[in-house]
Amino acid sequence: MADHTGAELHGDESVQITGLSSAGTGRRGDIGFLDGDGKAPVDISSDISALFVNAANVQHVPGHVAYLVTSVPRYAHSAAASAMYQPLHLVWHGSEAISAEASVHEEAIIAPGAVIGPGAVIGEKTVIGANAIIGPGVQIGRNCSIGPGASVYCALLGDHVKLLAGARVGETGFGVMPGPKGAEDAPHYGRVILQDHVTIGANSCIDRGVFDDTIVGERTKIDNLCQIAHNVVLGRSVLVAAFGGISGSVQVGDGAMLGGRVGIADHVKVGEGVSLAASAGLFRDIEPGETWGGTPAKPIRQWMREVAWLQKNANPKKTG
Amino acid sequence: MADHTGAELHGDESVQITGLSSAGTGRRGDIGFLDGDGKAPVDISSDISALFVNAANVQHVPGHVAYLVTSVPRYAHSAAASAMYQPLHLVWHGSEAISAEASVHEEAIIAPGAVIGPGAVIGEKTVIGANAIIGPGVQIGRNCSIGPGASVYCALLGDHVKLLAGARVGETGFGVMPGPKGAEDAPHYGRVILQDHVTIGANSCIDRGVFDDTIVGERTKIDNLCQIAHNVVLGRSVLVAAFGGISGSVQVGDGAMLGGRVGIADHVKVGEGVSLAASAGLFRDIEPGETWGGTPAKPIRQWMREVAWLQKNANPKKTG
Amino acid sequence: MADHTGAELHGDESVQITGLSSAGTGRRGDIGFLDGDGKAPVDISSDISALFVNAANVQHVPGHVAYLVTSVPRYAHSAAASAMYQPLHLVWHGSEAISAEASVHEEAIIAPGAVIGPGAVIGEKTVIGANAIIGPGVQIGRNCSIGPGASVYCALLGDHVKLLAGARVGETGFGVMPGPKGAEDAPHYGRVILQDHVTIGANSCIDRGVFDDTIVGERTKIDNLCQIAHNVVLGRSVLVAAFGGISGSVQVGDGAMLGGRVGIADHVKVGEGVSLAASAGLFRDIEPGETWGGTPAKPIRQWMREVAWLQKNANPKKTG
Repeated sequence: MADHTGAELHGDESVQITGLSSAGTGRRGDIGFLDGDGKAPVDISSDISALFVNAANVQHVPGHVAYLVTSVPRYAHSAAASAMYQPLHLVWHGSEAISAEASVHEEAIIAPGAVIGPGAVIGEKTVIGANAIIGPGVQIGRNCSIGPGASVYCALLGDHVKLLAGARVGETGFGVMPGPKGAEDAPHYGRVILQDHVTIGANSCIDRGVFDDTIVGERTKIDNLCQIAHNVVLGRSVLVAAFGGISGSVQVGDGAMLGGRVGIADHVKVGEGVSLAASAGLFRDIEPGETWGGTPAKPIRQWMREVAWLQKNANPKKTG
Repeated sequence: MADHTGAELHGDESVQITGLSSAGTGRRGDIGFLDGDGKAPVDISSDISALFVNAANVQHVPGHVAYLVTSVPRYAHSAAASAMYQPLHLVWHGSEAISAEASVHEEAIIAPGAVIGPGAVIGEKTVIGANAIIGPGVQIGRNCSIGPGASVYCALLGDHVKLLAGARVGETGFGVMPGPKGAEDAPHYGRVILQDHVTIGANSCIDRGVFDDTIVGERTKIDNLCQIAHNVVLGRSVLVAAFGGISGSVQVGDGAMLGGRVGIADHVKVGEGVSLAASAGLFRDIEPGETWGGTPAKPIRQWMREVAWLQKNANPKKTG
Repeated sequence: MADHTGAELHGDESVQITGLSSAGTGRRGDIGFLDGDGKAPVDISSDISALFVNAANVQHVPGHVAYLVTSVPRYAHSAAASAMYQPLHLVWHGSEAISAEASVHEEAIIAPGAVIGPGAVIGEKTVIGANAIIGPGVQIGRNCSIGPGASVYCALLGDHVKLLAGARVGETGFGVMPGPKGAEDAPHYGRVILQDHVTIGANSCIDRGVFDDTIVGERTKIDNLCQIAHNVVLGRSVLVAAFGGISGSVQVGDGAMLGGRVGIADHVKVGEGVSLAASAGLFRDIEPGETWGGTPAKPIRQWMREVAWLQKNANPKKTG
């Protein structure tokens, strides 16, 4: 692996690497990575076997962990992953639309032009729409409906899940990491989990997680043209209206209601039962039960007060 | 039907139900529903034969109408609909890409991979793009162009209509109704009507109506990635730039111009010839000919005055 | 041509027209057009052979150029184009999913359901996803990945280019021109150029240019659900987060970073290394290296100062 990635090996040279992980979640046999300036505290799994690190992070490597030093640890980790694993959907070819290695329930309904990859599982009475695409290894439960032209990769769907036309589930999320020749797309290894009774609107996108999974809770309903980024966790019975944009690693509590075109910045936590007014742009955590609006978002009464005050003071009396 | 939905029947037990409708538009033989708190005035068709109602609305049922009492009237109505009708696109399966029961004009051009359902009609010189999907019963006129990968369901298209790649016409709109076990998607029974010379941009979505139709008027042009919700009525020669979001039941007059990323809240009426500046978020009706901007939207001069006043007063003199 | 378009010919009747162009870029044998009120200075190629003009622009036609007078010059130009050329994708039909006239490298991987048009070229180790569509004449380099259900028309892709699922490359942009019976879609003749290592997110749209090309520079990364309009030129290593909307003819310098839901008005120039905060709506040029936010966008410190000042002054003291 040192040869393959150009990194310099330190520690036990006989360690066997059998899997990939993040630094914090690795088990015995896994290799992770540490990058950044080395100043922030680092969470490292006590079981992990090896790490790619840059010079600034060598100090954080526990004594029992082998490490490979490189200026681009995440890139090296990704290169190692590519050498160890070949994603199934990149070697899936040929003219067999419904793979002989897929498991399709005899009471499932498959419309013309649908494509189902090897290892996929389609449950009882589930409907796969015309020209929809079910990637290799995807599992779909019972009574689901996958809309025409929709695609599902790297995902696990419960029962009664609906994807409308053109929905994109399980694509790689947006992230850039430094590579030896410039920006590279950060690789993603997680899945998308859509729990029972979830509905995803037309042309909406739910990205797969980086190492962990992106999760959409039971009975959560998402409108058309929404974007749910990697590692997001949406609770149960959340409503997201059209053009909702939920950035990476956001957590939204049960029963929250997001109006049209609401945006939430990455890593923000939204409490249970929160309401966000249409067009709100949220950059900070909200406690359960609050109603906020505006950009940057604030409690809705405050936002309305500011809007009214500005209107009163900025305009001649007659329009005030 | 009472057995099937668990509702309690009152009135004429021999009434024959042959169709479904909203409470206000039902004809003889139709069954509708009444929900809500029963305090607002209710419009009930004088011809309708039966209604699902909750306890709060029993008082509004006319004497000659049979009724079934349930705590979830809309859900019961939907369950009855599922028992009476099976949507064609949910039973459309097999490997026949172009249905023998479709009517395709001999001068139409069908690209490879296109799928055309039973009962669909494709007019003279219309082009169906590669891997596009025309659902069962869809009617498309002459000289239309359906882009690659686009899908059309539950719709009626005039002549010279263009859909660019990935456009989604006729999907179910966003709506949630209470069911016995939690939120359920509200069923949709209406169509999408696209009049002559309408153009719909790439990956834009036009949802079908709930009971009535969603209508886009002659020569209206819609850019990429727009969302037109259920029951919207757009007039003639309306322009909607990218990311335009028009919520349910909005009405827009002829010749209105909507800049990029304009959002309009549900049930709002926009007069003829109105202009909305890019990024406007409109929450109230506008008279014909007005030009508005901002969020919440207001007359454009007022919006510009407020922006300038804030800039002048909030900043040190040199930037004022 | 005069007969075909109903325009009145002036000048050399024997001139041979062999191509179409804009007025400013035409070469010998080309015909262009001039419309508008004739008051602004007009750039006319010295080599162009003929022009469609309206009455207000006849004065600008150089002496050696033949001209055809019509009230709708752009429409007449488009009608002439339709008579001279038939776009390949409008005559592409039949059941041959991978055209015998396409050139597919033997080490390319083609997933089930993919459609590849005549004249297309697919490079070594490039992966074409399930049900993806590669239009006639499209050229794609080595080690590219075209996602499931994505479509590519009128485009030239370098090496290591990735399109995620449902991306739409090369569709006609949004533009309306007057025709004899009302608004018509302005025709587009340009291409999309995606340079090496470009990534385009799921369901994002990159429109082809009108006469020139739309260009996305090396290692530029675009998130899901973005809209890049006709004639845009993005530099190298530009980042565009989800719902980014870049209007026609915008130029963005190398290394610029656009947060989520940033919108840029048409013809704006954004310098190298500029940062735009999430939700910014930009209506004017920005110098290199600046960081702006808000709608209308302004320097970020000024925007934050205005937000804080309004909050302080509009609210009771306790919340100030």
